[in-house]
Amino acid sequence: MTSREIKYLFEPRGIAIVGASDKPGKIGGMILNNIRHSGYQGRIYPVNPAGGEIGGLPAYCDLVDIDGIIDVVIIAIPAKFVYQAVRQCAKKTVKFLSIISSGFSEIGNLAEEQKITGFAREHGMRVLGPNIFGHYSSAVSLNATFGPGDIKPGNVAIITQSGALGVAMIGKTAIQNIGLSAIISVGNKSDIDEADLLEYLIEHRDTRSILMYIEGVQHGERLVEMLKRATRIKPVVVIKSGRSKRGAIAAASHTGSLAGSDQIFDAIMQQCGVLRSESIQEALDWCKFLSTTPLPAGRNTVIITNGGGVGVLATDACEKYQVKLYEDKTHLKTVFGEVTHGFGSTKNPVDLTGEATTQEYITALTSALKDEHIHAVISLYCETARMTSDELTSMIRQVYSAYRQSGKPVIFSLFGGELAESAISRLSRENIPIFRDVYESVSPLGALFRHYTAVMTDSPPVKNAAIHYAEITRLIRTARAEQRSFLLAHEGQALLEAVGLPGPRSAVTKCIDEAVARAEEIGYPVVMKVVSRDILHKSDVGGVLLNLENGHEVADAYQAIIHNCKAHKRNAVIEGIEVVEQVKSGTEIIVGAKRDGSFGPVIMFGLGGIYVEVMQDVSFRALPLREIDVSLMVKEIRSYPLLLGVRGERRKDIEGIKDCINKVGSILLNCRDISDIEINPMIVYERDQGVKAVDVRVLLSEPERKKA
Amino acid sequence: MTSREIKYLFEPRGIAIVGASDKPGKIGGMILNNIRHSGYQGRIYPVNPAGGEIGGLPAYCDLVDIDGIIDVVIIAIPAKFVYQAVRQCAKKTVKFLSIISSGFSEIGNLAEEQKITGFAREHGMRVLGPNIFGHYSSAVSLNATFGPGDIKPGNVAIITQSGALGVAMIGKTAIQNIGLSAIISVGNKSDIDEADLLEYLIEHRDTRSILMYIEGVQHGERLVEMLKRATRIKPVVVIKSGRSKRGAIAAASHTGSLAGSDQIFDAIMQQCGVLRSESIQEALDWCKFLSTTPLPAGRNTVIITNGGGVGVLATDACEKYQVKLYEDKTHLKTVFGEVTHGFGSTKNPVDLTGEATTQEYITALTSALKDEHIHAVISLYCETARMTSDELTSMIRQVYSAYRQSGKPVIFSLFGGELAESAISRLSRENIPIFRDVYESVSPLGALFRHYTAVMTDSPPVKNAAIHYAEITRLIRTARAEQRSFLLAHEGQALLEAVGLPGPRSAVTKCIDEAVARAEEIGYPVVMKVVSRDILHKSDVGGVLLNLENGHEVADAYQAIIHNCKAHKRNAVIEGIEVVEQVKSGTEIIVGAKRDGSFGPVIMFGLGGIYVEVMQDVSFRALPLREIDVSLMVKEIRSYPLLLGVRGERRKDIEGIKDCINKVGSILLNCRDISDIEINPMIVYERDQGVKAVDVRVLLSEPERKKA
Repeated sequence: MTSREIKYLFEPRGIAIVGASDKPGKIGGMILNNIRHSGYQGRIYPVNPAGGEIGGLPAYCDLVDIDGIIDVVIIAIPAKFVYQAVRQCAKKTVKFLSIISSGFSEIGNLAEEQKITGFAREHGMRVLGPNIFGHYSSAVSLNATFGPGDIKPGNVAIITQSGALGVAMIGKTAIQNIGLSAIISVGNKSDIDEADLLEYLIEHRDTRSILMYIEGVQHGERLVEMLKRATRIKPVVVIKSGRSKRGAIAAASHTGSLAGSDQIFDAIMQQCGVLRSESIQEALDWCKFLSTTPLPAGRNTVIITNGGGVGVLATDACEKYQVKLYEDKTHLKTVFGEVTHGFGSTKNPVDLTGEATTQEYITALTSALKDEHIHAVISLYCETARMTSDELTSMIRQVYSAYRQSGKPVIFSLFGGELAESAISRLSRENIPIFRDVYESVSPLGALFRHYTAVMTDSPPVKNAAIHYAEITRLIRTARAEQRSFLLAHEGQALLEAVGLPGPRSAVTKCIDEAVARAEEIGYPVVMKVVSRDILHKSDVGGVLLNLENGHEVADAYQAIIHNCKAHKRNAVIEGIEVVEQVKSGTEIIVGAKRDGSFGPVIMFGLGGIYVEVMQDVSFRALPLREIDVSLMVKEIRSYPLLLGVRGERRKDIEGIKDCINKVGSILLNCRDISDIEINPMIVYERDQGVKAVDVRVLLSEPERKKA
Repeated sequence: MTSREIKYLFEPRGIAIVGASDKPGKIGGMILNNIRHSGYQGRIYPVNPAGGEIGGLPAYCDLVDIDGIIDVVIIAIPAKFVYQAVRQCAKKTVKFLSIISSGFSEIGNLAEEQKITGFAREHGMRVLGPNIFGHYSSAVSLNATFGPGDIKPGNVAIITQSGALGVAMIGKTAIQNIGLSAIISVGNKSDIDEADLLEYLIEHRDTRSILMYIEGVQHGERLVEMLKRATRIKPVVVIKSGRSKRGAIAAASHTGSLAGSDQIFDAIMQQCGVLRSESIQEALDWCKFLSTTPLPAGRNTVIITNGGGVGVLATDACEKYQVKLYEDKTHLKTVFGEVTHGFGSTKNPVDLTGEATTQEYITALTSALKDEHIHAVISLYCETARMTSDELTSMIRQVYSAYRQSGKPVIFSLFGGELAESAISRLSRENIPIFRDVYESVSPLGALFRHYTAVMTDSPPVKNAAIHYAEITRLIRTARAEQRSFLLAHEGQALLEAVGLPGPRSAVTKCIDEAVARAEEIGYPVVMKVVSRDILHKSDVGGVLLNLENGHEVADAYQAIIHNCKAHKRNAVIEGIEVVEQVKSGTEIIVGAKRDGSFGPVIMFGLGGIYVEVMQDVSFRALPLREIDVSLMVKEIRSYPLLLGVRGERRKDIEGIKDCINKVGSILLNCRDISDIEINPMIVYERDQGVKAVDVRVLLSEPERKKA
């Protein structure tokens, strides 16, 4: 579907409502009523078997009787009648079905939902829902929901997977003076999901920020792609519930969608430049601020306060929300020297003290506005007896208007009693960014700067890795031919070779003499391993022996391994014994990639052993990667200093690690047959000394023929 | 000072105001005015050189002219006149000085502040401030602040180090209907600090929760002791600003108090059972809720909701705020089976669905109230068209009153537009715990359960460790006699022996033959180390040699070490060469204790090497310790699984670790001469195999004679 087509969901020329009714309390009637009163100028067709007139409009007994263009059909009838209604829609050139009705996959009735969606798709129709409250679109003044009738048009678009929350959000935005460009309930997401809607919202000029409430992700790969596109252009804020383990279970039982790993979700959202919020109020605060505030020219932020205490709290909040405080003390003194009192401070926070007058506040804020080194301002006010509510209000109005014109972000925080409260409620109504609590006020500014980072970060995609795909294809073909869903150890080594990741030299041998000869070629010490598809945990049964120093030991080991494996499993087919170079020690890392059920192809990196298993110190990204993603993956693990070298050790070969991440990612992206690949351990040596993949585990996807 | 005496600060029989005035805008006048109008029944004496009448009361030219009892003198005159005024106070039997004036240590004028406080203490007077806005005490209806005149009496006590914030908090509590039992500005804390005030507030019946805003801690040891006492009786909430590095610097420049390590502060607050809040609004929410809600009978919490989405968000919030959700599905089905609709769920969250009526809500909440297995309830409501604001309001009133009577905690969250907003503002005024955002509502319940844990945790102090203090005293005396502020290596080993922590066997030798003889006794391999106070970093200069396997190697090493050290420092006095048992490898840990400038004696534990240095994976506690503190210290490090045994390793000797923590703590507590002690590394073997202290570093305190 192109954004050209999805446009008709948001800007339909005609709408039919199946289940329209005049009976009070009927969902279909509530929706019809909202459409009629929202100012929608297209054609409206109520459909009801009883016919007659509904809501003052002629009603149709059957959808097929309608003559004009119907871009959207809203279906608000009991679940069991929906399929029949959809069949009728197929007889007209309907583009979209908005299925309000509940009683499908959310209560386990997946079959019926799939039947309906399958039928619709076959007949060129796309399905929103089922189990939704409808959608609103400011572009054509269309309120096709059964929520509140009054929706203030504006610049924030909301996509929500929860219906009840969505309806409540409409109410919330109304009282908080947040205008909406759209709100769409996606419910069970049987067909249309967040990615489809983003196609439209990215291009939609009136949408200046996008809020998504997500419980579970199904087609993460496409969502990731769309989110990356979207955040280059406008801020996207996501609330994903089910972040806790217990919450994920609750989410699963609520919409039937698996929440997926929260750690992976979080990493991917950051990679996409998406702003993740915990609470709905915070998300709304961010969206409101971001939809009215232009991007700053830089990161230097100054706090101007009349109270030292709130200044300190704001400084803490700046660290929490990653707001960079401007530190040039000399310049700060030049700018603010004249307005700070004897007990005050020109250091950032700039403390005007409790003695500050309105005029001094204005002077300080104006100085910050004019100064080209200062890019954003946090203005704090602790209620004292110095100013009246009117003075405060008009001061903030005046300053805000100057800042708006200049395009420099400013945010206000008033802490206090009645005076502060009355100023906040007056100014909030004018959409001036003003908050009660210091942390609340710094939080949206932090969101702005993180969005700024996403927009400003211009990193090329990783370079194509030199990989012999033909060889990998051959390996996979062999495994498939043998009905295997994994590669054998020596195949894994061959794959590493094809990828250009130097593994230990090795050879599979079939007799003692051959083993000794190969060991001599490889060089001692060597490791020997059984090659057998019948033995999975080779080490546990004595199928792996280490530290073999000479030909005698190799010969003994050959016999011992055969003996151990036969003792473990009498009928085990042993294809040979692999003789492997024993690699010298270094720093162990893991690089793995898999096709995640929720998010598509993802890659993981961490230091090996304890660091992954006990400290869970790993980083994730969605594929494909940009160069900066690879750098950040390496840097963001807590144990990164070990790679830089601690306790007199030298820096490790970080370039080698990045190359490995790039290559593992490329394999998963380019070889659809591979579902999982994990190099563990990979030994990293000192800078320029390279890396050595000791072991690799490769799992194959379900063969294509088994699908569909 | 006993709590009997501090009582007169809160309940003075007579008050004098030095600097009282009728001139508008004068601080002294504002305070007098507040005192006069707050309903205070004691005697009020305005003092002003001009005499006459001030605020309708006879004014005294000089304090000494006053006849009646003066428990508190408020001083609100320029800094330079304060000392003289304090001298006058000494002529009367004044108990407390509340020095409002600024211009002391907060701007670097520490000397004047110390002179005043020193004089006051010498004359039996205690000082609140300077640099404060005063104090309020509901016990005698006394508003001796220059903040707002209207303070609602109630059950929350506030102690604040920031004046501007404190004044603003008075305003905030007024509009949020939070009654105060006291609010005290401590400012520069030249004398009276939080611990002194807690003496009164712990016993004060009308104070049901205590909020403290802290920027820096000076006498942490006493504060810790008082906080431990306080939290057994009533909840204490602390906001400590300067938690970020940048914030700590801002705090230091604001009040001149060093913020101390935030990690240590955080650990100690948790140990004391103190609830630490980030933002002021959150702290106020907690205090209001905690001052009106009794302790629960247990931890089982149930979420009742009409929206799945908010239910999932609340589940996430419960994990964040450590609220335990009741999980017995069978029992939940019995309790809620009848009220959940077809699409709903009796699992926790109990989802009544958007179809829920008022009556169903009441039934569900009443069922939860009656059930003895359910100890607390989170009631969520997403605004739908089902209920009117009146229905909602009266439903919540009815339910809340039933819950209050039963003593079972309940908290409400309404998410939505006008209906929700109007219900929230009506119910908030009645002090019903009701919030807009899901996270906001779960947060105070989490605070309640953490307070519950603090109250319910009954852990004995650690047992007295068997330590030969006489021997330690002897070691310290030797070091002192030699003007050393540290123990030499062999003294450290002797100390470990006195403590009963088995170290490696060792002997200091003076010649090669002696070294070989001792090595034979100890058993190979051995380590050899130079003993010299002139050489600090012994390893770096070749003063330590490892892995010596026989007599020849010992002899060679002896000569090599002497040679290396002389090469490094020609004149170094070498007292001997220590021959030490080379201990077998195991898991390395660090146990250290020190006298922290802010918090007094604290103890630290962590796994050694990388885990401490790179991963910063350590735990802290203030001394003395209870048994549970020791257990938690060991368990809360991230690398704890390594002690339990991973990858087939066996459990380590955790009892040995606990014993070591206990002993190191005991030394610091009992040997005032020791300022720092760190065992690093300590080798821990498998369970019942013990620990071995390899090295210990002991620093001595400044000798007592240098103090005072």
